[in-house]
Amino acid sequence: MGLQHIDAAALWADLQAVRERAPLVHSITNFVVMNYNANALLALGASPVMAHAQEEVADMAGIAQALVLNIGTLEPDWIRAMKTALQAARARGIPVVLDPVGAGATPYRNAALADLMAAGAPSIVRGNGSEIMSVAGVAAKTRGVDSSASSGEAVDAARALARDIGGVVCASGADDHVVDAAGRWAVLSNGHPWMTRVTGVGCSASALVGAFAAVQPDAWRATVSAMACLGVVGELAVERTQAAGAGVGRLQIELLDGLQLLEREAFTSRLKLDVRG
Amino acid sequence: MGLQHIDAAALWADLQAVRERAPLVHSITNFVVMNYNANALLALGASPVMAHAQEEVADMAGIAQALVLNIGTLEPDWIRAMKTALQAARARGIPVVLDPVGAGATPYRNAALADLMAAGAPSIVRGNGSEIMSVAGVAAKTRGVDSSASSGEAVDAARALARDIGGVVCASGADDHVVDAAGRWAVLSNGHPWMTRVTGVGCSASALVGAFAAVQPDAWRATVSAMACLGVVGELAVERTQAAGAGVGRLQIELLDGLQLLEREAFTSRLKLDVRG
Amino acid sequence: MGLQHIDAAALWADLQAVRERAPLVHSITNFVVMNYNANALLALGASPVMAHAQEEVADMAGIAQALVLNIGTLEPDWIRAMKTALQAARARGIPVVLDPVGAGATPYRNAALADLMAAGAPSIVRGNGSEIMSVAGVAAKTRGVDSSASSGEAVDAARALARDIGGVVCASGADDHVVDAAGRWAVLSNGHPWMTRVTGVGCSASALVGAFAAVQPDAWRATVSAMACLGVVGELAVERTQAAGAGVGRLQIELLDGLQLLEREAFTSRLKLDVRG
Repeated sequence: MGLQHIDAAALWADLQAVRERAPLVHSITNFVVMNYNANALLALGASPVMAHAQEEVADMAGIAQALVLNIGTLEPDWIRAMKTALQAARARGIPVVLDPVGAGATPYRNAALADLMAAGAPSIVRGNGSEIMSVAGVAAKTRGVDSSASSGEAVDAARALARDIGGVVCASGADDHVVDAAGRWAVLSNGHPWMTRVTGVGCSASALVGAFAAVQPDAWRATVSAMACLGVVGELAVERTQAAGAGVGRLQIELLDGLQLLEREAFTSRLKLDVRG
Repeated sequence: MGLQHIDAAALWADLQAVRERAPLVHSITNFVVMNYNANALLALGASPVMAHAQEEVADMAGIAQALVLNIGTLEPDWIRAMKTALQAARARGIPVVLDPVGAGATPYRNAALADLMAAGAPSIVRGNGSEIMSVAGVAAKTRGVDSSASSGEAVDAARALARDIGGVVCASGADDHVVDAAGRWAVLSNGHPWMTRVTGVGCSASALVGAFAAVQPDAWRATVSAMACLGVVGELAVERTQAAGAGVGRLQIELLDGLQLLEREAFTSRLKLDVRG
Repeated sequence: MGLQHIDAAALWADLQAVRERAPLVHSITNFVVMNYNANALLALGASPVMAHAQEEVADMAGIAQALVLNIGTLEPDWIRAMKTALQAARARGIPVVLDPVGAGATPYRNAALADLMAAGAPSIVRGNGSEIMSVAGVAAKTRGVDSSASSGEAVDAARALARDIGGVVCASGADDHVVDAAGRWAVLSNGHPWMTRVTGVGCSASALVGAFAAVQPDAWRATVSAMACLGVVGELAVERTQAAGAGVGRLQIELLDGLQLLEREAFTSRLKLDVRG
């Protein structure tokens, strides 16, 4: 699997596949971002469903094309439901994305992540530098839900974690590093710092990864596609926002518009992708 | 009760009544749409309150002018609270709107709906085609929370369900069909497909039905008024959005603006209402 | 502590301190406003974290610079967690803001507030007139979550409550009255009635108070700073919204933009502050 898998044309084809197939993405995510994540998936062209009751998560994962788990506002019942959904998704062979929000911030959060991952390995883990380092077992301090490490500092941890789960890990930040168990490594350098000032953009990245993984069986390429799409959409959205003299409120709207209206030429000409591995 | 009840002037009068009386609408709804539903009610001129604890739902329903139940992100404790609130609302004679989100998607969801409706019949049920068919006991497949049947295909099921509950049923979609137990049938043809790409617009429709039913005692007319208002607001909002070169992010904002700022002339000239029953 | 503490220059310095120090604000708040509150804190320049599990609230409060408790969609487990977080915050000496949403609306809500405040006094209580009167034990009727008393009618109750808790109370409304146990009393008269038609603006005020109290040790001045900031931002946002022919949907976006982009000259020239006590 080489470069041809992830040039701009290939990544664009993945976006087209999401738009055409409108995959059903089952999310068990946090209260803060549920609305924004659902809107991001709808804008992209996917179909979101949120359900967290122990009584139905296996059935809902059973009709979805991808499962996204996000521990942002975790509690014991939710972790239990996530485990059930994770196992149902793995049994069916659909991709599972894990967003370890706030990993490292509290002992309970770390224990819950360990418990969740003991129930089965996710296909893809996406987090900021601190979160990836924490999940990988590298000492890292997470300040609430913000990263205190750059994504670049987390690359070794990401590689180790990818090998551990036999899957894909994305450490996102100023650069997004996407690595897999086989040693592939892509670096995306789109985006803008203002994107960290809209709550749920990182969580939405994980949701989008789920949508792309639902249509693109190579989970590494799907992750690169999703991060590329959001990165390019994000920097264009910040430019439109700033040109209008507006701020991060307007930015959340521009991001959604961009996910829906992104065109091939803009995507291709803006994409900053470097394949290192 | 004939045509005079639901011409444009009558429906407009209902909207004016909502704006003047600002009814308190108690919602027990899903996590994804709580914020958007509250903003939709506020934009319309109603007063939203959200409360779901078993310990207070009867008291809160006891001071409200309408109750709206939405099972989008259900769990056992929430269904229990919905039953308590439903019975309190019925005892007081205030209208109860039920939005059976995702009916048919999982066995648990169907069982919860049966349990809820066994506690008392809602005054009004509003859902998409699949959901209405599922609640009516007609075999239908719901794909997550999206409909796999057109609203037109659900009319017979809607009529049967309306007779069952002795109330009103709205199957919404490209056309919105509003039927009641006495055989009245109104069809509204406003709106735009983009409205399905903002999460919570369907759920907001149910919330608005609650606000209109709080001020208009004829539940069928109230439902027609609410769906007419949202349909006209929606198509105008899409036009403004597209004229600005924007997308579904902007649309959610334009929808709220439209609910607040809708004027009589625009409403009257745009309304596409057909009374068949 | 006299006037020099709260002239426009002093309040502006507090905003600059928030922007520079980006305090971590731990919120246990209601489902309706979580997203908007997080975005308001991010727009302001603070760093929000939401966590409500009994298993981690003490640890999360242990790394935060302020704790904000909001009972809007309360239930027993959440009140229990709020008590734990409150005690952890008090033990560390970080400020605790309480927003008693809907106080007086139901007996359960009143009992939960009494239970919460018995666990420890908050540093600052911010609510509308009815809510403050209810928490102070003055008979008041809250209509859902809207106030049925003006903030001016609640000043005596606010003063009594401030003495009770040995802290600061803000009764907000057309005027915002900020009083403390020592008898200081500031009145802010910025803002616009449309602000009450965006859900979560009041709750966001409480979140902003948390951010300011994290950087300004005088809790009374911090509260005045936060309310001044939001009031000025709000009236400018309404002006921009109305100039664009837009409504309360657009207003929520303009409010966030304003929190991020507010400049000294606009703040200073607009501020309507009257120190009476």
